[in-house]
Amino acid sequence: MVVFAGIDLGGTNIEVALVDGTGKVLSHKTHPTEAGLGYERVIKNITETLNEVKGDSYISAIGLCSPGLLDVERGICLFAGNLGFRNVELKKPLEDAFGVPTFIENDVNAAALGEWRFGAGRGTENFILVMVGTGVGAGVICDGHLLHGKSNASAEIGHTIVEKDGLFCNCGGRGCLEMYASATGIVRMMRQYIAKGNYSSVISDVQGDMDRLTAALIASKASEGDSLSKQVINEAAEYLGIALVNYINTFNPEIVAIGGGVARAGDILLKPIEEFIRKRAMEVQARDVRIVRSALGEDAGTVGAAAVAMEMIKIAKVL
Amino acid sequence: MVVFAGIDLGGTNIEVALVDGTGKVLSHKTHPTEAGLGYERVIKNITETLNEVKGDSYISAIGLCSPGLLDVERGICLFAGNLGFRNVELKKPLEDAFGVPTFIENDVNAAALGEWRFGAGRGTENFILVMVGTGVGAGVICDGHLLHGKSNASAEIGHTIVEKDGLFCNCGGRGCLEMYASATGIVRMMRQYIAKGNYSSVISDVQGDMDRLTAALIASKASEGDSLSKQVINEAAEYLGIALVNYINTFNPEIVAIGGGVARAGDILLKPIEEFIRKRAMEVQARDVRIVRSALGEDAGTVGAAAVAMEMIKIAKVL
Repeated sequence: MVVFAGIDLGGTNIEVALVDGTGKVLSHKTHPTEAGLGYERVIKNITETLNEVKGDSYISAIGLCSPGLLDVERGICLFAGNLGFRNVELKKPLEDAFGVPTFIENDVNAAALGEWRFGAGRGTENFILVMVGTGVGAGVICDGHLLHGKSNASAEIGHTIVEKDGLFCNCGGRGCLEMYASATGIVRMMRQYIAKGNYSSVISDVQGDMDRLTAALIASKASEGDSLSKQVINEAAEYLGIALVNYINTFNPEIVAIGGGVARAGDILLKPIEEFIRKRAMEVQARDVRIVRSALGEDAGTVGAAAVAMEMIKIAKVL
Repeated sequence: MVVFAGIDLGGTNIEVALVDGTGKVLSHKTHPTEAGLGYERVIKNITETLNEVKGDSYISAIGLCSPGLLDVERGICLFAGNLGFRNVELKKPLEDAFGVPTFIENDVNAAALGEWRFGAGRGTENFILVMVGTGVGAGVICDGHLLHGKSNASAEIGHTIVEKDGLFCNCGGRGCLEMYASATGIVRMMRQYIAKGNYSSVISDVQGDMDRLTAALIASKASEGDSLSKQVINEAAEYLGIALVNYINTFNPEIVAIGGGVARAGDILLKPIEEFIRKRAMEVQARDVRIVRSALGEDAGTVGAAAVAMEMIKIAKVL
């Protein structure tokens, strides 16, 4: 059996798994990232955790996914704010430690590749994964290829403009999707409505402390029928709908999978998104596409990272 | 010398050229399409014109580009309104007549492929051609591949949403770029301003007959300093800017080339577009991209069609 290591390097935890060629997780371990202790400590935590997970197994290749801006070809993290990384090697220390080819990829891209090979996008040639959480990101498979762009800075759906003269975004732009449809954006919207004197049952849930407001709470209140929560979720859904119509009219995909923390809200968010797409996307593109939830759940990161390794060494094709 | 035939099938004319492997046009002929006389007549016009252009030359492959919705793999035009075509063969009759492999492609995609290989996008791996004319279309090369999507209905930038609750578009959507930034959209905008009582020097140019208003006239008046024309062109530029920022943040391209009739307006339109992009696109994507004019001019169609043939038989790589 050919086995791959998938490493999901996050701001809080490092997830390491051994994954077989069918995307099945054989073993798994979590370790705190300890980014505050510096780059060398993070690499040490990764290699030690992989050594533990690996045991006596032979691995064919390592895939690692990370947030931030990566130079995929050189295997370098150019910048990752929440890891405190700037121009650090990710590929080399792992190849040195384990003696097998190692490949790195942006976390949303890796998750998209994993969902495409083993999850919600299986069997398609044109697939989009949209992750709606604290931020909003996407990974796109077009005509059987993962979209990269010149500097691996593609598919920034969270920073496509959905409101012409909209809110200022910290990317330097204005009216970006992320300002309206991320967890942060949803909470901001609710706070603004409440500040203007509108009533919502979330107020008593957080005992008037607006710092305790979360997108999950708003979504659950919306499901229970709170009308302001419903309005906020519908607005977020409409903005997501705009960005998704733009992606659907651009990529003509077969499946769009929606994942991430906010997507856990379920039908209360996803139904209006789908309705918007059915109404507003072009005929052929609307006919071709299905909107689904992402399928890999908690394993998305490690399986995605392993899928990157498989894709890169093209071994998946001979399995 | 290896020679390709490039056929640009348009609603009015058929352009046929012999093109060498470097994109050079060796000979060229135009013939009226005569779409009104039916499909068989159009095919006859194509084959006769190609026979004339070809003379005694040997051609390696034929590329044909056409408007409308194509099934590229089967070589069929599924629908093309201005040709009166529905489910007709394009590839087969040419292969039968000339005995060489024939490939068909959507006209904007072919133009993008031509510009990428031989024009404004040469030497890049990530290139976007945007054509701004009666409509607005795009062709995208990402990571060295022409973007197709499931039904070859990709890169419909003209039907991406740039105004949330905007004008109704005949695609069934609302707020589509094409409603604001196409020649038609620009004329509509000017008419609306004039109907509201605003003054522009275009009024005397068309002697008060608003049916004679054209985007070219508005652009030329804007260049001469007419303030309402400038405002209209600036608004069109802003909407184009929004859609282009969305494409740049999505594809992370090296070059975006702008072509088509409206782009002939030149700096009066292109400068504000570029300024908008510099201000609103994400840092890395803005750094990576250059905005230029398309380079192939009148040969874009035939050279693009020939480039499709080259791409498909991969001969370009061995030349």
